[in-house]
Amino acid sequence: MVVLEQINNSADVKKLNQAQLEVLAAELRQEILRVVSQNGGHLASNLGIVELTIAMHYYLDLAPGPDEIVWDVGHQCYAHKLLSGRREQFDTLRRLDGLSGFPKPHENPADSYVSGHSSTSISVAVGISQAARQLGQQKKVFAVIGDGAMSGGMVYEALNHGGDLRLPFTVILNDNEMSIAENVGAMSKYLMRLRSNKRYRHLKDRLTRFLLKRKRLGKSFYYGLERFRDAVKYFLVRGVLFEEMGFVYLGPVDGHNIAELLETLRLAGQIEKPVLIHVITQKGRGYGPAEADPTKFHGIGSFDLLTGQTSPKPPSWTDYFAEQLLKLAEAEPRLVAVTAAMPDGTGLAAFQKRFPERFYDVGIAEQHMLTFAGAMAARGLRPVVAVYSTFLQRAYDQLFQDICLANSPVVLAIDRAGLVGEDGETHQGLFDLSMLCAMPNMTVLAPRDAAALQQMLDYALQLGQPVALRYPRGSAPTLAQYPLQPLVWGKGEILRRPPQAKLGILAVGDMVQNSLALADWLAERSVTAAVADLRFAKPLDEELLCDFAQSFGRLVVWENGVISGGVGENILALLQSRGIAAEVELAAFPAEFIPHGKPEQLFARYNLLPEQLGERIMQRWQL
Amino acid sequence: MVVLEQINNSADVKKLNQAQLEVLAAELRQEILRVVSQNGGHLASNLGIVELTIAMHYYLDLAPGPDEIVWDVGHQCYAHKLLSGRREQFDTLRRLDGLSGFPKPHENPADSYVSGHSSTSISVAVGISQAARQLGQQKKVFAVIGDGAMSGGMVYEALNHGGDLRLPFTVILNDNEMSIAENVGAMSKYLMRLRSNKRYRHLKDRLTRFLLKRKRLGKSFYYGLERFRDAVKYFLVRGVLFEEMGFVYLGPVDGHNIAELLETLRLAGQIEKPVLIHVITQKGRGYGPAEADPTKFHGIGSFDLLTGQTSPKPPSWTDYFAEQLLKLAEAEPRLVAVTAAMPDGTGLAAFQKRFPERFYDVGIAEQHMLTFAGAMAARGLRPVVAVYSTFLQRAYDQLFQDICLANSPVVLAIDRAGLVGEDGETHQGLFDLSMLCAMPNMTVLAPRDAAALQQMLDYALQLGQPVALRYPRGSAPTLAQYPLQPLVWGKGEILRRPPQAKLGILAVGDMVQNSLALADWLAERSVTAAVADLRFAKPLDEELLCDFAQSFGRLVVWENGVISGGVGENILALLQSRGIAAEVELAAFPAEFIPHGKPEQLFARYNLLPEQLGERIMQRWQL
Repeated sequence: MVVLEQINNSADVKKLNQAQLEVLAAELRQEILRVVSQNGGHLASNLGIVELTIAMHYYLDLAPGPDEIVWDVGHQCYAHKLLSGRREQFDTLRRLDGLSGFPKPHENPADSYVSGHSSTSISVAVGISQAARQLGQQKKVFAVIGDGAMSGGMVYEALNHGGDLRLPFTVILNDNEMSIAENVGAMSKYLMRLRSNKRYRHLKDRLTRFLLKRKRLGKSFYYGLERFRDAVKYFLVRGVLFEEMGFVYLGPVDGHNIAELLETLRLAGQIEKPVLIHVITQKGRGYGPAEADPTKFHGIGSFDLLTGQTSPKPPSWTDYFAEQLLKLAEAEPRLVAVTAAMPDGTGLAAFQKRFPERFYDVGIAEQHMLTFAGAMAARGLRPVVAVYSTFLQRAYDQLFQDICLANSPVVLAIDRAGLVGEDGETHQGLFDLSMLCAMPNMTVLAPRDAAALQQMLDYALQLGQPVALRYPRGSAPTLAQYPLQPLVWGKGEILRRPPQAKLGILAVGDMVQNSLALADWLAERSVTAAVADLRFAKPLDEELLCDFAQSFGRLVVWENGVISGGVGENILALLQSRGIAAEVELAAFPAEFIPHGKPEQLFARYNLLPEQLGERIMQRWQL
Repeated sequence: MVVLEQINNSADVKKLNQAQLEVLAAELRQEILRVVSQNGGHLASNLGIVELTIAMHYYLDLAPGPDEIVWDVGHQCYAHKLLSGRREQFDTLRRLDGLSGFPKPHENPADSYVSGHSSTSISVAVGISQAARQLGQQKKVFAVIGDGAMSGGMVYEALNHGGDLRLPFTVILNDNEMSIAENVGAMSKYLMRLRSNKRYRHLKDRLTRFLLKRKRLGKSFYYGLERFRDAVKYFLVRGVLFEEMGFVYLGPVDGHNIAELLETLRLAGQIEKPVLIHVITQKGRGYGPAEADPTKFHGIGSFDLLTGQTSPKPPSWTDYFAEQLLKLAEAEPRLVAVTAAMPDGTGLAAFQKRFPERFYDVGIAEQHMLTFAGAMAARGLRPVVAVYSTFLQRAYDQLFQDICLANSPVVLAIDRAGLVGEDGETHQGLFDLSMLCAMPNMTVLAPRDAAALQQMLDYALQLGQPVALRYPRGSAPTLAQYPLQPLVWGKGEILRRPPQAKLGILAVGDMVQNSLALADWLAERSVTAAVADLRFAKPLDEELLCDFAQSFGRLVVWENGVISGGVGENILALLQSRGIAAEVELAAFPAEFIPHGKPEQLFARYNLLPEQLGERIMQRWQL
């Protein structure tokens, strides 16, 4: 790392010559590969953006300078972290108390704004630029956004506003021809047309340069020429969509050619309007296995650097969902599956292959996804929307109005619900129970194991109402000692009811397994506990709850989510409304931003391991 | 009403000749004016869309036929309701158990889908069209969307997907050159350019017609011509933005000329691709006062039909907010105000006039609004975002990630928080407390009266953290008998603490007044009650709560919101975590969709009037 070890901020990058910049690119790739192969993380996107990151650090004066880069989604910021004084901590990437995999201003001032979800960067850049204008500060602001993120509606809201404000900021469209999976939608086809327009490559850039030089000849002459350029532009179909929004379109530029990138950045710097630079990059660049299969290497656990092989994992909740969905789809022709750019992560890839005509990937567009699904459901189809808990937050109102108020029988398969671990604050799926339990007309199911997930999916499709089925990240247990009972709407299931139980544990979803462990731990200490699987987070099983409360007087409600608005609080309200007094221990996370780390580390930190909870209960109730 | 009284569905409209259609338009306007002047409602938009509604009913086979109209936002559906068998109930518009002011499928099958919030119609139309295609049904689907709603990002998500699916559905862009207030943003300027391009008016339509006729001459010839047309199109800058998304653009068409509208609809019907028809209408058309001031007549209470005058109202919460914001802005140059197309409703119009350079109307784009404000706040400005509670639902995730996680000192001024009344299910502001109380880093304030609102706004701006200040619709009381104490973070205020009180009432915001009325009602029955104003819905005042719970053992928590996830539930959780037993009556709405009606009627229906609550308490606790 002869070059990289000299770099502590963007001022150091400027000292390098062309050859050193090329070496730096190689060293960054090497370092990213080394650490991601150990710690897991986002690989393909980070390999693809190395040269572009170098070019921006070379061109901009980042912290302690005034300039800023806003990273959309943020999972492509590894090279940026390595260049901004964090190379010595880079080994701690995604580890508890280590570097985050996403931009975090509290980690380093070169990280302008926190990100993690898609399509927000242009809004942030518009806000930062406008604040600078208003406060009379000079700064260059870059938003770096992938072509996949361009399908998110917020981008368009921000282009609409930013183009109107005529702020001199720059959008870097990092076009790797895919989002997480293959890109979809009209925008993606449009970008393809732009990309393929190679023969006009330099004509418009030259025309722009020519015009900038002629500006001093007088306004009317300049604007006459601008109109002429517009005519040429429309004729050549080059970036007109962006130009209509008030942006000057430059590109496409080879995103792996540092010299060409720098030349374009300098050209953009002379334009006193919003500029969009279309940069073509390759996901996984420089690492064969990732170039060949960028979807696999999008977000990955640790892997063997030489072979690209990951170690085999036990089947996940996602796998069981995917398997059952295929089976149900064979029997039910009205079943359709919907995703927002996550066919692989949500397990829909197999469905997509088997039933392409019943599969919809709407792009990164959660709002449209839910309303679209709601309308299909209202007209006789049976949509299953597979979405991560954290991304469901993007469509709260569409869920509220276009599914729940419309009472459309959409099945939400909410993956990564609960603690997700290494992706940290922006990705924990801890708030969906709060959202969903307050939604009128919504039924919320949470399976305790793989078989329950499959049973519940089947049930949800037959219910004819909005249903959310939430399950966590990771491998799914099989609690074979508790064979499944048929599902009855709003009814839980008592798993253990020892005579003279001193307390009752009410568990939601994956916390059933932990609750059984807690009951075992207590039993070893001669404290017997009843255990029920609520099955339905909403509606609550009043009969079961009142029975447990009255029989034991002491309850533990355990859910993989936050306390505020969660199942536990709803149980407290129910008991109060029935006038039943009970002491209740709410075992859940506080409504805080939970950082990154391994799930078991985080459960431990929040005192939510079975033995920790056991100690607390024994103390609280003097058992 | 000689013509209107013969119309029960769209089949009846088809029987009319041109002259009768014109008479029908006049009769619809007359009826809309008569009822809205009595009941209040959305006037300007409904007057503007009369001819377009007639043309669509003439052209389409609506229920019991297969065709569908999806109304964006939905507040422009009055003529549609009058034409689809509801003219005899039209007098009950917006009244309890009467007709809703928005499309409601359970009210009439001609209402395709529930709506109330902006920018969803294209997603719904895509879903309905795709379901029909998949189920082998033939139907024409129209989405009718205003130019104001075009700034919402969902529109773009839906165009992106719908253009890609190549579904033969039609988007009617109802362009009245404003949303609720003046339009903003690059899209609005773009539409203006389209509108003004009158000299090319017919050229492209004729070209399209010509091409359609030549289609049978063979594909390659046709596509050659299409390419030629594209070149012409780009050169003429006509609708290219929509065409890039996969839509055929037709128009602009005079939206008050039924014959011209019908001709264009028939042309659109021949195109086997998504079509966007650009229709120019005038808000308030046919009623002088509304034509002159469409913003005032957007949503209005009852008014004098002859003069257009509304009766004067006591100052509202909004008025006090607006007054104080101006005052604070004089002293604090970093204060900026942000709205999503609601400068009038939220009271920002005066600020806009006084400080145009510190005022941002981002269009109907709540997601961008919050992220933009978050970034400005992080860079030294002091943004106050004024938004209705119901529309804040549109930006749950941006609030979560880009304000709370970023910990950016944005002040949310949440208007219409709590029951709003006549606008019904889609507009009640009952869920914001559930949302906000679970948001990490968020402080939530609720003023009890006008003076408290102004005090809290001042405080919020100085806090340097994300703050939400929520206040309801309607006139603000002045509780002069309780002079304001200084605000201390997380501290409530005890208003009454009579000796030997039998219970404690904990009130949130506007429910303080009701709680005092409840205490009075109880006192008349010799039941003394302590009353506290929580002031902070989050964080909770632990000391006050524990004190009240331990002193009285019986608590009432009263908030203008839903129970699930609300302040009451959070209080229950807090008491449990401290091991304090108390009986708590949660006075709030169930987490249901609360219909339209006058607020006092709705409070009564949900047993939330002071005397109703008093009866319930006396019974529960045998007082």
